[in-house]
Amino acid sequence: MKKKILLLHGPNLNLLGTREPDVYGKMTLEEINNRAADHVRGHGIELRAEQSNHEGALIDILHIARNWADGVVFNPGAYSHTSIALRDAVSGIKLPVIEVHLSNIHAREEFRHKSVIAPVCVGQISGFGWRSYLLGLDAMLGHLGLLDSL
Amino acid sequence: MKKKILLLHGPNLNLLGTREPDVYGKMTLEEINNRAADHVRGHGIELRAEQSNHEGALIDILHIARNWADGVVFNPGAYSHTSIALRDAVSGIKLPVIEVHLSNIHAREEFRHKSVIAPVCVGQISGFGWRSYLLGLDAMLGHLGLLDSL
Amino acid sequence: MKKKILLLHGPNLNLLGTREPDVYGKMTLEEINNRAADHVRGHGIELRAEQSNHEGALIDILHIARNWADGVVFNPGAYSHTSIALRDAVSGIKLPVIEVHLSNIHAREEFRHKSVIAPVCVGQISGFGWRSYLLGLDAMLGHLGLLDSL
Amino acid sequence: MKKKILLLHGPNLNLLGTREPDVYGKMTLEEINNRAADHVRGHGIELRAEQSNHEGALIDILHIARNWADGVVFNPGAYSHTSIALRDAVSGIKLPVIEVHLSNIHAREEFRHKSVIAPVCVGQISGFGWRSYLLGLDAMLGHLGLLDSL
Amino acid sequence: MKKKILLLHGPNLNLLGTREPDVYGKMTLEEINNRAADHVRGHGIELRAEQSNHEGALIDILHIARNWADGVVFNPGAYSHTSIALRDAVSGIKLPVIEVHLSNIHAREEFRHKSVIAPVCVGQISGFGWRSYLLGLDAMLGHLGLLDSL
Amino acid sequence: MKKKILLLHGPNLNLLGTREPDVYGKMTLEEINNRAADHVRGHGIELRAEQSNHEGALIDILHIARNWADGVVFNPGAYSHTSIALRDAVSGIKLPVIEVHLSNIHAREEFRHKSVIAPVCVGQISGFGWRSYLLGLDAMLGHLGLLDSL
Amino acid sequence: MKKKILLLHGPNLNLLGTREPDVYGKMTLEEINNRAADHVRGHGIELRAEQSNHEGALIDILHIARNWADGVVFNPGAYSHTSIALRDAVSGIKLPVIEVHLSNIHAREEFRHKSVIAPVCVGQISGFGWRSYLLGLDAMLGHLGLLDSL
Amino acid sequence: MKKKILLLHGPNLNLLGTREPDVYGKMTLEEINNRAADHVRGHGIELRAEQSNHEGALIDILHIARNWADGVVFNPGAYSHTSIALRDAVSGIKLPVIEVHLSNIHAREEFRHKSVIAPVCVGQISGFGWRSYLLGLDAMLGHLGLLDSL
Amino acid sequence: MKKKILLLHGPNLNLLGTREPDVYGKMTLEEINNRAADHVRGHGIELRAEQSNHEGALIDILHIARNWADGVVFNPGAYSHTSIALRDAVSGIKLPVIEVHLSNIHAREEFRHKSVIAPVCVGQISGFGWRSYLLGLDAMLGHLGLLDSL
Amino acid sequence: MKKKILLLHGPNLNLLGTREPDVYGKMTLEEINNRAADHVRGHGIELRAEQSNHEGALIDILHIARNWADGVVFNPGAYSHTSIALRDAVSGIKLPVIEVHLSNIHAREEFRHKSVIAPVCVGQISGFGWRSYLLGLDAMLGHLGLLDSL
Amino acid sequence: MKKKILLLHGPNLNLLGTREPDVYGKMTLEEINNRAADHVRGHGIELRAEQSNHEGALIDILHIARNWADGVVFNPGAYSHTSIALRDAVSGIKLPVIEVHLSNIHAREEFRHKSVIAPVCVGQISGFGWRSYLLGLDAMLGHLGLLDSL
Amino acid sequence: MKKKILLLHGPNLNLLGTREPDVYGKMTLEEINNRAADHVRGHGIELRAEQSNHEGALIDILHIARNWADGVVFNPGAYSHTSIALRDAVSGIKLPVIEVHLSNIHAREEFRHKSVIAPVCVGQISGFGWRSYLLGLDAMLGHLGLLDSL
Repeated sequence: MKKKILLLHGPNLNLLGTREPDVYGKMTLEEINNRAADHVRGHGIELRAEQSNHEGALIDILHIARNWADGVVFNPGAYSHTSIALRDAVSGIKLPVIEVHLSNIHAREEFRHKSVIAPVCVGQISGFGWRSYLLGLDAMLGHLGLLDSL
Repeated sequence: MKKKILLLHGPNLNLLGTREPDVYGKMTLEEINNRAADHVRGHGIELRAEQSNHEGALIDILHIARNWADGVVFNPGAYSHTSIALRDAVSGIKLPVIEVHLSNIHAREEFRHKSVIAPVCVGQISGFGWRSYLLGLDAMLGHLGLLDSL
Repeated sequence: MKKKILLLHGPNLNLLGTREPDVYGKMTLEEINNRAADHVRGHGIELRAEQSNHEGALIDILHIARNWADGVVFNPGAYSHTSIALRDAVSGIKLPVIEVHLSNIHAREEFRHKSVIAPVCVGQISGFGWRSYLLGLDAMLGHLGLLDSL
Repeated sequence: MKKKILLLHGPNLNLLGTREPDVYGKMTLEEINNRAADHVRGHGIELRAEQSNHEGALIDILHIARNWADGVVFNPGAYSHTSIALRDAVSGIKLPVIEVHLSNIHAREEFRHKSVIAPVCVGQISGFGWRSYLLGLDAMLGHLGLLDSL
Repeated sequence: MKKKILLLHGPNLNLLGTREPDVYGKMTLEEINNRAADHVRGHGIELRAEQSNHEGALIDILHIARNWADGVVFNPGAYSHTSIALRDAVSGIKLPVIEVHLSNIHAREEFRHKSVIAPVCVGQISGFGWRSYLLGLDAMLGHLGLLDSL
Repeated sequence: MKKKILLLHGPNLNLLGTREPDVYGKMTLEEINNRAADHVRGHGIELRAEQSNHEGALIDILHIARNWADGVVFNPGAYSHTSIALRDAVSGIKLPVIEVHLSNIHAREEFRHKSVIAPVCVGQISGFGWRSYLLGLDAMLGHLGLLDSL
Repeated sequence: MKKKILLLHGPNLNLLGTREPDVYGKMTLEEINNRAADHVRGHGIELRAEQSNHEGALIDILHIARNWADGVVFNPGAYSHTSIALRDAVSGIKLPVIEVHLSNIHAREEFRHKSVIAPVCVGQISGFGWRSYLLGLDAMLGHLGLLDSL
Repeated sequence: MKKKILLLHGPNLNLLGTREPDVYGKMTLEEINNRAADHVRGHGIELRAEQSNHEGALIDILHIARNWADGVVFNPGAYSHTSIALRDAVSGIKLPVIEVHLSNIHAREEFRHKSVIAPVCVGQISGFGWRSYLLGLDAMLGHLGLLDSL
Repeated sequence: MKKKILLLHGPNLNLLGTREPDVYGKMTLEEINNRAADHVRGHGIELRAEQSNHEGALIDILHIARNWADGVVFNPGAYSHTSIALRDAVSGIKLPVIEVHLSNIHAREEFRHKSVIAPVCVGQISGFGWRSYLLGLDAMLGHLGLLDSL
Repeated sequence: MKKKILLLHGPNLNLLGTREPDVYGKMTLEEINNRAADHVRGHGIELRAEQSNHEGALIDILHIARNWADGVVFNPGAYSHTSIALRDAVSGIKLPVIEVHLSNIHAREEFRHKSVIAPVCVGQISGFGWRSYLLGLDAMLGHLGLLDSL
Repeated sequence: MKKKILLLHGPNLNLLGTREPDVYGKMTLEEINNRAADHVRGHGIELRAEQSNHEGALIDILHIARNWADGVVFNPGAYSHTSIALRDAVSGIKLPVIEVHLSNIHAREEFRHKSVIAPVCVGQISGFGWRSYLLGLDAMLGHLGLLDSL
Repeated sequence: MKKKILLLHGPNLNLLGTREPDVYGKMTLEEINNRAADHVRGHGIELRAEQSNHEGALIDILHIARNWADGVVFNPGAYSHTSIALRDAVSGIKLPVIEVHLSNIHAREEFRHKSVIAPVCVGQISGFGWRSYLLGLDAMLGHLGLLDSL
């Protein structure tokens, strides 16, 4: 049976391509989602992408993913640094979750260095722009044993 | 006239029974709500239970409770540790609110020890699993003068 | 063309007039909005007021304002102290935003002294009750070059 | 065989009823002990109450309780915030211990928010005046499986 | 009788117009004082402006203002962050004092975020350049009940 | 009726005269007590002196003083820096208490600078050797209105 | 030869009697100076009192005191908590200095608990209103060996 | 011309396969290096791998890499958390450097959460075992524009 | 004349052998005392062992030891981390004191890492179970010049 | 045209030669000024030396120096550690300023380690007694391009 | 087969006997090594001693010890307080390691109180000069079961 | 006999002239060494310059310098902020050591403000580019009494 992955985007990521392009790049969220879908299609994986600015909606989406997804590649945006509720959702759904960030959060303001969600994820990838998502997907495929090379 | 109590559950509590049962127990939220309803029925109290993963929705529910409820037994979950907005809602509605937790938050990670909501509550009960809710209801009945024994 | 300003109210401000009047004053939110509308009408400005208790909804409203507004006067309430997501929304929409507070947040509990949103605003006005909003609007008019006297 | 519970009161609690009644209530310690004894008698439980202002004496009492008691309901008073020795006594005796407080310690001075004893207790109940003791006894009965309703 | 307001400027503000104009603007202190005098004259208010680089002189000026002024609009400059003596002067003279800052102090170095004087002021206005003074005066007029619109 | 004052000495003060005389002086506790008794006798005051190394015993002594004393001059020694239980005893007995120290605690190790008991005392006198006790007694006499000159 | 003592008052103490009388008492600075002069006159001591709101002036006065005074009783007011320059002046003049405070600084805001000047003084007396000055003078007389009883 | 990449391993990584395999995995360093060489060979990249337990030797190796390498994939091991000297070496050589970690450092002891080297790297990848290296190489290829898919 | 050593045990050590044997070992306090007595007997040393759960009693015992003992081997248990009073007793009695711990306190909870008593001891030995006592005795013998090999 | 340098001395430096000579040396301020004048005279530089104990006066002197001086060698004394107002004066006058200290401030009390003025100076020289001034002058000459050897 | 122990000395210990003898004693490293060899020879143990000032070399030596040693007695010197890399080496080699210090590190500067290596050692011995090594060897023999008396 | 000085350069300083020239200047290390040699030659001083990226090698070099050098001018680079081992080497060799920095470390990132080595040096010179070395040499000559003018 085909494996399914949720690609989840947190707050303000719908602005991608327009918001501070020197920090976050020029590609829109739709373009990233398309590129991600292309990337995994060759591996027989189905990808569903969702975005919300609502912490509660992100929790709901993660809860629902328990019923259909095999893994989550998640960019929690600014909620990374404050949301224990999202952390509990990630650890509660018992799916492998990989945290990704467009910018190198460790090179920005002090309050962005720490993610309260990372400790309950498989791992964290940060700083490679849109490539962070593709690397996150590759990491998930590797984690699920679906990639020969990884 | 019959007294009414709001039993309010915060984020991720809809997962109860499935999420980390060694920490939160095996009973589902519905079972806890039923047991709670049974518990207060004998005292002529009406109980309404609500749950949301949305901080804003929890605030809305508390605001509305001003118009119908006499007290709130509230498990704010992970929002306990971060949500000043919920704290302001609790102190703004001028109803007695009692904070309850399934797990002993003082025995877990450092960041769970402090509740920013507790200071504006009547009191806090933490660590007794589903019994925390029943003890919270008893405490509310006592606080409202509705219990002979308490 | 007529300039347009968004007057945005954060969590619990819908309770105004009833919630802790010694701290926040006796005027309701509707009365403040009316007074604000009167205040700017003479200057040929259109004002739209919105309120939400949902962090995510406030982010959505700010995003949408990019398409119609020339500036935002924003009382983020308790989210001022915790919401990096709102901060990112404010800095992402590239509109001038002015933060206002009814109470003097610097004279209250330690955790209310710091606003994580203020650093990406034009400025902050705090402590003048409902007048904080009118001063915020005047500051915005001055900032946009629409006020002779300011 | 009849179950036995130790009701243990820490420093300054002998002053109850006279000391800062707006914080701690008007009931004397004797009255609380009597009310507590009445409360558990119906459940066939034997209650022994002790009080000391001496940290060492409280440790001694806890050590002795290993030999006769099935559980401890303990108000450590001000020692809650400083006594690692009492914490070690509680964890050393291998009895279930429930921490109770008359006042809501989370709503008082910063240094009263943290209990160093709570992490080794079953749970903590705080803020309900003399009712905190009765709720603590009920929690213990429930924990020991002696209460149908809990 | 005509109301009187003290417009008080703290250390280094005599350099205005020449010192770091990208931070503090190009207008000189004299120009700001003139503009401020024009601004309140229409409201029948008398304004006296003073500046000193001496913490002690600022305290003296505030003490003397008890005898003639009805309110103070005060930019304490760098003393905002360190001078408890000025704070005590402000709270000791029992006049309404409004703190203003040219730059948005919350957007600058960490040590400029906190004002030790703000907690004893009516409120704080920060970030609007020379307009901060005019907004401060309007806020004072409103506070004193001298402005119809505010 | 004759006024009575308790002169209370905390831990290690029984070693006075022998323990680190360069820090605490060469006078024994008995000599200090005698000198103190002489000092107040002229004012028609009765003095009772007690010492204990036991935190609990000091609490007991303070509790008992409620029944006979009009004021307490108290050197809590090292318990000054750690004992919230003693602080609660001091604030619970509702007698005026004056804290005294032989050495200047503010000039010693960092951990001796802060007294958790001082905030609930009338005042604190520190650094004058055995004279600290006599000054403390004078301060108490003044506080009780028993000294013309003070 | 007659001994001479400087009685030095720091910032805002010229307001005494009018400024927050519930905190600082109703006696004016002049009355305190008179009472102090009376107090030491009997012991053949000459007292000179000075006050300034200027940190630099207080330093100058201390420097000059090297040439005429035998000791200083000093209330540094708010400069106690911030002025390392005054601390250096005190330690530089090599005269015995005794720090006094009208209010109990240990019972007020956190930032008033610590005096940076106290560590270089003989001792500190705090909390006895105008009596703090007289006790400070007695302590100085004792320290200088001029008082039989002390 | 063929691009060249340095694969650099920090302290204790020579123990891989034998040291705490539950944390770091069972693969030896040689096996990882071989797998990494295979991984990039298809892309026409030359890989040189080095390891040292010496902070200074790692600095030397980075300095030398300026003369031959186009990029560095670097696992600084425990030096990540302490070595400002390595940070300066990374920022001084002006080559793109990507930090990788076998374990999820954000999920381990507090002192492993922060990397002082990450802020001067392109990005950080952490938590995927030996796959972290391959992902790091892919990220480098992408960064250098050598990978179609990334 | 025969040298005498006090072997002093702090709070909860009377539970040894029964309390958390995985942390503290299976040997009872009596067995340890016997083994210790055997250990020093060959060296012509007299050993007296005492234990108390009372901080004040431990202080009393140390004070008395001034009159008969030549050195103290002391396990202050949990009082190590909090008792400045015990620290003062140790430094006041002017005997060599060696601190020992059964468990490696540096490997346990953060709050057990620091001993406030260690800085006034000769040295500290921690982590060797019952052997810590024997090593402490050897260290004392060496310190007193009573051991050829040490 | 002849270059001019201000040699500015902060609080308590007028005491030099008499105040704590083991820390600050035996040379008086006048001797240092003379030696400094001699030192630069050979380079055709004019030196003006000023000293004040008043923070405000130091600010005034710096402001005036804008009109005549080419650089400032400044020993801010204790104001180094607290005066943001002086920092702003230094950065506001746009002259090169070099901070010097007689003693090695990094080797003294913790609170002397940090200078809030140093970050806006060219550099800092600390620990060489009166030689610090001459080294500071040489550094200024070098900075201004007036010294062949430097 | 004969057991073998590595005696490992960290940075600056080669200076022993010459460097600050009041802190570290007058015995040279060679003398300590000889005394240590004598001490264990009677127990049929082989001792190899090594010293390095290089953190990396110490790591290398520990790695190699895996292949020949049964235990390590290690004085990490100043690296105790900073080297997580050494900590990882100690925990990675899976040999029992005992940390020793000549001076009582708990009685010295604050930054020497904490050892980051101690938590992964069997235990720590500190403060007994050259005897610390012999006690460390005895502790190791006891730990390995090679000593009857221990 | 000719005096000899060691000029010691720490990590990454071999990159000088190429590494971040806007921070560290354009002169190479060799050029600085030559200029330094020229500078002292006229004073009959011999200079030996060494550089290493290895903390341990720097310690070795300092140890050896005990046998030939009369003083050390030392730029510890990034090790300034972390190396207690180097601090101990500096204080252990009992030679005068002067710390120099090219950049003004007090004006850079927070973690560069503090040098753990400075407290055991004669003094610190920071911020004058290559001139810092020459000033450091002059300071050393002055300290050794080899310079008439200093």
